Formats: sequence, C-alpha cells, structure tokens
Amino acid sequence: MSVRTEQSGVTVLGLGPMGRALAGAFLDAGLHTTVWNRTPGRDQELVARGAVSARSVEEAAAASSLTVVCVVNYDAVDTLLRREAVTDTLKGRTVVNLTADTPDRARDAAVWAAEHGIHYLDGAIMTPTPTIGTPAAVFLHSGPKDLYHEHQAVLEALGGTHTHLGEEIGRAAAYDIALLDIFWTAMAGYAHAMAVARAEGITARELAPFARRIGDLLPPIFEGLAEDVDNGSFSGENNPLTSAASSMAHIVHTSEAHGIDAGVMRAAEGLARRAIGQGHGTDGFTRVAELLGRR
Amino acid sequence: MSVRTEQSGVTVLGLGPMGRALAGAFLDAGLHTTVWNRTPGRDQELVARGAVSARSVEEAAAASSLTVVCVVNYDAVDTLLRREAVTDTLKGRTVVNLTADTPDRARDAAVWAAEHGIHYLDGAIMTPTPTIGTPAAVFLHSGPKDLYHEHQAVLEALGGTHTHLGEEIGRAAAYDIALLDIFWTAMAGYAHAMAVARAEGITARELAPFARRIGDLLPPIFEGLAEDVDNGSFSGENNPLTSAASSMAHIVHTSEAHGIDAGVMRAAEGLARRAIGQGHGTDGFTRVAELLGRR
Repeated sequence: MSVRTEQSGVTVLGLGPMGRALAGAFLDAGLHTTVWNRTPGRDQELVARGAVSARSVEEAAAASSLTVVCVVNYDAVDTLLRREAVTDTLKGRTVVNLTADTPDRARDAAVWAAEHGIHYLDGAIMTPTPTIGTPAAVFLHSGPKDLYHEHQAVLEALGGTHTHLGEEIGRAAAYDIALLDIFWTAMAGYAHAMAVARAEGITARELAPFARRIGDLLPPIFEGLAEDVDNGSFSGENNPLTSAASSMAHIVHTSEAHGIDAGVMRAAEGLARRAIGQGHGTDGFTRVAELLGRR
Repeated sequence: MSVRTEQSGVTVLGLGPMGRALAGAFLDAGLHTTVWNRTPGRDQELVARGAVSARSVEEAAAASSLTVVCVVNYDAVDTLLRREAVTDTLKGRTVVNLTADTPDRARDAAVWAAEHGIHYLDGAIMTPTPTIGTPAAVFLHSGPKDLYHEHQAVLEALGGTHTHLGEEIGRAAAYDIALLDIFWTAMAGYAHAMAVARAEGITARELAPFARRIGDLLPPIFEGLAEDVDNGSFSGENNPLTSAASSMAHIVHTSEAHGIDAGVMRAAEGLARRAIGQGHGTDGFTRVAELLGRR
C-alpha cells in the first residue's frame, strides 16, 4: 500500500512499542517519516527502514506538517510539547495525539493547542501493538471534522478501521476509558478465576476452553443489554439481581476459603446488594449501571 | 428426540425458571416426568404438557429412580432432602444436584448422600435458561463415573454438551465458581463502563458495537494466557503491568470525576499495584493470578 499526500510526510514522537509500530506502518505505506524518542537508540531499526531520526522535538516537529504523538500519558505529552521552541514550530501544523489518558486531559490539550494556533486531533488506539498496519487495528478519533478529513489518508496508512466519533475533542478518550474499563475488569476477573481454579486443583489450561465459551457469551450480551440501559428498562426475567448476588457471594466465599483476596468481587457484589436494598432485586444486572450513574 | 431407559422417568425438584426449563426438556424427550415445587402452581404448564405433579418431596422422589434438584442454593436443597421421609425414599436411588453453590457444599452433600445410601452426582448449568433443550446448553458433571454413565442418556435429554469433569464431587462446582467469576466480573465492568460512557454523553447503544469488539478480543486472550499462568511465565512484552495500572488509574479518575463509584476498578488496580510493588512491573497482567494464589 502506498499513500501519497500533497504534504510531505509525518513525524512520530515517542518510540515505545506502540510508537515504533505506528512509525513502521507509516514507512510501510511509503510516507516520509521522521521519528524522535526521549531515550536515544530506539529508532535504529526504523532508521534502517528509511526513517529520519530527529535530534530534538522541535526538529522532528519542523520536518512534517503532521505530528503524531504516542507516549505514556499526557504528563509526558506536556513535557515534550509545552515549550516555546516546540509551540513556535507547531504553529499552523497539526498534532494527532494518540496517547491514552482521560477525556479531561484531551480537552485541556485542545485548549492549549488553540491558544498556540496548533491544529489538534485526539485519538485512541483500541487494539494491541501487533495489529498496527493490519486490518485488525481499531482507531478512534475526535476533533474538528475538516481537520480529520485533511489527514485521514495519512492516518489510514496505520491500517484497520478509523472512526471519527465527533467534534467534541474528549470523545475518543471517553470511548477509550469505557472500553478499557470493560477490558481490564474482565481481565481482573479472569486472573482471579484462574487463581481460584488452581486452588481447587484445576489448571488454567483445563479451565481455558470453558473460559473461552464464557467469553463467547459476552459480546452478544453486551449488545443486547445496551438498549435496556438507554431505555431505563432492566428486565431480570431469567436472571434477577438476587440470583447474581447469590452467585457472587459463592465466589467470594470460595475464594476467601482458599485465602484468595476477593476484593474485586466484593465490590461488584456490593453494587448488586445496594440495588437489591433499594428494591430492585427482581431487576436484571443492568440496574447496576443506572445505580452507578445516579447523581 | 426420544430417550428411553430401562428405568422409568425422572423427577425434577424446584420449578424456578431453570427447573421448569429442565422439566420441559425431559418432557420433550418423551420421559415420564414428575415435578414438585415448594410454592404450588408453578407446575401448571408442565402438567398440561404431561408432567405428573407430586404433592410432596417424598412422593416426587418415590416416582423415579433419578431425581434432579435445581433450587436457589444448597441451604434450600438441605431443607428439601434432609428429612427422614425423604432420605428413606431416596435410599438406593440417584440424586443429580444441578443447584449452584460452592464446591465445599457439594462435598458436604456427597458425605450426607453416602451416609444415607443415596447415589449422588453434582452438576452445574453454565448457560442461561433459554438454552436448555438446545445444542447451546452446557452442563458440567462430577462424581462417580459409573453412576454418571448410568444416567448419561437421561441427562443428555437436556440438550447441549455434557462434560464429566472427574470423580471428585466438588469439581463441577469449582469450575462453575471460576466461570461465574469471569462472567460476573466482566458484567460488573460492562455495567460500570456504560455508566461512565453515559456520564460522558455517550449512549449505551453508541458504545455497544465497540464494546462488542472488546468482548470479541477476550476469548482468544483467555486461551492464550492460560499457558502463561500454568508455566509461571508472565510475559508483559507488549503490555506490562505498569501500563495496565496506568489505564486503570485513568478509569478510576474519570469515574470519580463524574461521581461514579469505582470500587471494582480500585480493587483491580490495587492488585496490579501490589504486583508492581513486589518488582513485577514489567510482567504481564497474568502475574496477578499468581499473586492472588500465593499462600
């Protein structure tokens, strides 16, 4: 695949595993790619593949009309960009910030960018490093629509699907937070389940095919319950909260009988018990989403 | 489908939604089915379909060589079965207990059964009520292998896949607990994610297609990580614990900024931070399973 735009190439700031994958995909797409990393030496393989190594952030920013930033968090972004030499260089250019952080940090970055005449898009990468440059990659973007369309062709060189979620700059980060919430909570549940299984003499490998089937149940359930929550209907016909809370208590009991911390499940059970205590025992588990969202 | 055995039919104790589904599947398979429920009237539809309604647990138990129990928990099982009139009737017959509870309760029930000359199998139903009688149902069984094979044809009238996990009577309940741990933790994560999304102006319906994709990522990850945990290798190459903890902190921050309880994620982040504090920051998240299991 070869992407050509009127503008000459792209700069990548941050060469952790994800930043290197992004720069590699730009190179594979035939784009003139300039790279920079705080710790030197991370760019060697990219330079061998044709990337230009910049000696400073301002030199990197000056090399392209579009700078993609992917570092550990927005504190790190601010350390790199919020210096006069850099803001002067970026004026009139575009920054696409693919660093993961909170929606309020994205909003704060957009205010800073506007104050310095820098065009700003915020984004989130929803799939692991090995997906970059492949059809499996998933990118979310937010910010000015025209600006997004101006750079869309270059961004699509990263592979996968790109969705512009709206002009509100915090939207990509908000989706990112909600989706990571699902992911990391599920991972905590799986790590805990493996610990409990092993204490019961079941290896993780023995559990795995059954765990996979439980995982297979989740995506259609996720889709089915969304309507429930938006409509404020919380049907518990086949699975009332009382029954969920009873399962959760069994999990807590079995864990703690083995000396295994059950803090995650205790917190989840607490939410179910709170909803039951408020008279929602015959509702489905989605009532918990409503309870959490009450102001 | 029609199942015939030398023995005459099956009894179902407990006619909640799941008990009714089990009895319905036995009837559909052409089995002589006797039913009983503590609260009367729940059997009307089943009787119309050919079930025999018993007036007491002992009458129900006397009607069949196999009694399937599916009630709210083992306290309820004990209330039904641990009376002389019932144990006398069950002597020499088989009880298959499909009630959900903890492995220690299953072990306790097996001791009681042995003391009274009752043949005992313990089982768990891993799929929701509507799957019963269909290929999508998943049943787990444990207990004496010969006894399982004796009743396998009748049990398979319930549809789906049946797995005998071993002779140790607590094994089905142990798998059940571990699998429900995954399920309910993931559900707590999804309910929380919907609350956070809505606070950020994203409807549950807007989030759903992306939530589904996150759900799709989980089953292969679950299978892939099991080997890691059994081998005691905790590779964090593309996703170290430090990065997971950073994501988790962003989720906690964003939730609490909206006044949304983040107790589940706080507990999960606590596990990650504990592992990092013990020098495992570059490991993958599966290190948490090992940490939880330490004695």
